[in-house]
Amino acid sequence: MGPGPSDVHPRVLRAMSTPLVGHLDPSFIDIMDDVQELLRYTFRTDNQWTIPVSGTGSASMEAAIANLVEPGDTMLVPTNGYFGDRMASMAERAGGDVVYVDAPWGEPLDPVDVQDAFDQYQPDVFGFVHAETSTGVKQPDVPQLTEIAHSHDAYVVADCVTSLGGVELEVDKWDIDVAYSGPQKCLSCPPGASPLTLNDRAMDKVLSREEDPRSWYLDLSLLEGYWGDERAYHHTAPITNVYAIREALRLVAEEGIEERWDRHLRVANGLKAGVEAMGLGLNPEDDYWLPSLNAVLVPDGVDAGAAIGYVLDNYDLEIAGGLGALDGDIFRIGCMGHSAQEKNVAFLMSALGEALEAQGADIDVEAGFAAMREQFAE
Amino acid sequence: MGPGPSDVHPRVLRAMSTPLVGHLDPSFIDIMDDVQELLRYTFRTDNQWTIPVSGTGSASMEAAIANLVEPGDTMLVPTNGYFGDRMASMAERAGGDVVYVDAPWGEPLDPVDVQDAFDQYQPDVFGFVHAETSTGVKQPDVPQLTEIAHSHDAYVVADCVTSLGGVELEVDKWDIDVAYSGPQKCLSCPPGASPLTLNDRAMDKVLSREEDPRSWYLDLSLLEGYWGDERAYHHTAPITNVYAIREALRLVAEEGIEERWDRHLRVANGLKAGVEAMGLGLNPEDDYWLPSLNAVLVPDGVDAGAAIGYVLDNYDLEIAGGLGALDGDIFRIGCMGHSAQEKNVAFLMSALGEALEAQGADIDVEAGFAAMREQFAE
Repeated sequence: MGPGPSDVHPRVLRAMSTPLVGHLDPSFIDIMDDVQELLRYTFRTDNQWTIPVSGTGSASMEAAIANLVEPGDTMLVPTNGYFGDRMASMAERAGGDVVYVDAPWGEPLDPVDVQDAFDQYQPDVFGFVHAETSTGVKQPDVPQLTEIAHSHDAYVVADCVTSLGGVELEVDKWDIDVAYSGPQKCLSCPPGASPLTLNDRAMDKVLSREEDPRSWYLDLSLLEGYWGDERAYHHTAPITNVYAIREALRLVAEEGIEERWDRHLRVANGLKAGVEAMGLGLNPEDDYWLPSLNAVLVPDGVDAGAAIGYVLDNYDLEIAGGLGALDGDIFRIGCMGHSAQEKNVAFLMSALGEALEAQGADIDVEAGFAAMREQFAE
Repeated sequence: MGPGPSDVHPRVLRAMSTPLVGHLDPSFIDIMDDVQELLRYTFRTDNQWTIPVSGTGSASMEAAIANLVEPGDTMLVPTNGYFGDRMASMAERAGGDVVYVDAPWGEPLDPVDVQDAFDQYQPDVFGFVHAETSTGVKQPDVPQLTEIAHSHDAYVVADCVTSLGGVELEVDKWDIDVAYSGPQKCLSCPPGASPLTLNDRAMDKVLSREEDPRSWYLDLSLLEGYWGDERAYHHTAPITNVYAIREALRLVAEEGIEERWDRHLRVANGLKAGVEAMGLGLNPEDDYWLPSLNAVLVPDGVDAGAAIGYVLDNYDLEIAGGLGALDGDIFRIGCMGHSAQEKNVAFLMSALGEALEAQGADIDVEAGFAAMREQFAE
């Protein structure tokens, strides 16, 4: 129940133990088609250009940025978490100039600030993080942000690593040009093949670049030959990971994407009610709370690292601490995919409660359990 | 029995179905240590900088080239197969200038030509392909090539995708600075985490670059934080693929690396004797024949694609055709890792024999079997 990888469903683990066919085998082509169609369903998009990138989440992130940002382009990135900095580094390496829209770690972007940044810098590409894994913040007002960007003729790249498959995400309806994700969060799939989608407008920019992207491995104009109609060799796909993501996405489709968002919300609501009644605070305010990754404030006098070690050693349960500006201030508790179950929340409450009491924290575990149960009973 | 992926040992498939721990979990750190030590054993190197790159073989290739080649560097690449062109494209995208040493497709590089190219161009980096998957050619005289390069103060990058774990390869003894490979060839591991090793001399160049490498995902100076002593977060490793490569490398160590080279040679010798006695030729001459990937000449009047389709449809057996200049001229028959077994060669001989006879080719399948059996009996 950390920030990922989440627990993997047995059906997905079984898919990973399937013997391999070749990456150009006709039967594998059918699997590729399945994965693309299921990714479209999960992203809520009709984008033809929807593929699993052959690497972990940072590879799909780099595929998005390194292809879209051309030398001389300006990219606007946020400062409110760990992954805005990563966007900046990737954009600079792609030959772009980077400008920033500010918000503190642990808070979302304010559309007014985004509007101001656009007026000031006129960026070509705008990146934001829909679900910040480092801070547990969900960016609200996404359609407002994309509208600002498009009224300035810019392209929008959304980091959906911790939202895809767990939190409401509407790529087409919200008018997001490029979205990427990782498989090991709310999709509960082992990392190694990572979702990416681009609309035609973004793909037109990629395919009309004057200069090749600086990565051959992640060059979408070359990948088009493999994942597009031609199915020609580019590189060997991570075959087993493609099997796995197909099975993970089938589980999404069987559950129903909206039902899956509801489950995440329901289970995380139990966690939220429980830790709050226990006497702990959540870092984000309610309107930007991220159900899939809960940033719980570390009580005064508690050593976060020691508590994390306690639950790992005594309960074999993984949770994480804060990063960057929130290091030592928050616990990061995932509620993702197959891990998002009531019984796991109850187990976490026991383990964390005990770890905090062991450090003499002033908390009320019984009240927490009562509130959690009440929430689940609703 | 195509050019990869090869068949995966059941123990490796089982490893892939193991539930996941986090990429920073203490138990995963132990697994990382194992993988690094086993990779050193398999590469025959003491290089500290020996890691699995989080992607398929082309990712380890790009990690090698994109980190070592700095803007303004000149890289010398070969023209004798498919993968020299890929090296060239990666070097150019890294900001390098590319020069060529010529040899026809299906032949190795001649050290005299390499010497001439060094005298003419004084390149900073020299790339060659130890085992050309596209042509079935093994580069002989590797120590001679590295000596030429080092006498010109250049760095040597060796593509060992189809040799590592199957064909004699001595990274340290042959004085190779950087070597990379894929897991799905002679290691018989599903693709997704790909071997890379750099000696201190090469790593010093990487770590003293003036400009960041153009890929964030593959930046070895950042990966140093994760795979080096610190074990700090860079990106989420493909955890399951790391489990798998550990198990695949354990199988290498249990068999013994030299015994494994011998097995590949013995099994491929049976294949070679068999197809030759059947009346088919091998494209490479004996002194640069690559046991792990056999380039068998397509007999006159035979449609290679139809024969490949025949063995897939009727025997569920994968072999491949030629690429580029050898398209239609050769079959590419793998003899790699767990697939390199006598019974598989016998099966292939039956299937291919039947496919060729179905097209009226003038071959002697019985004579082929007799020669194969005689070879195996030795």
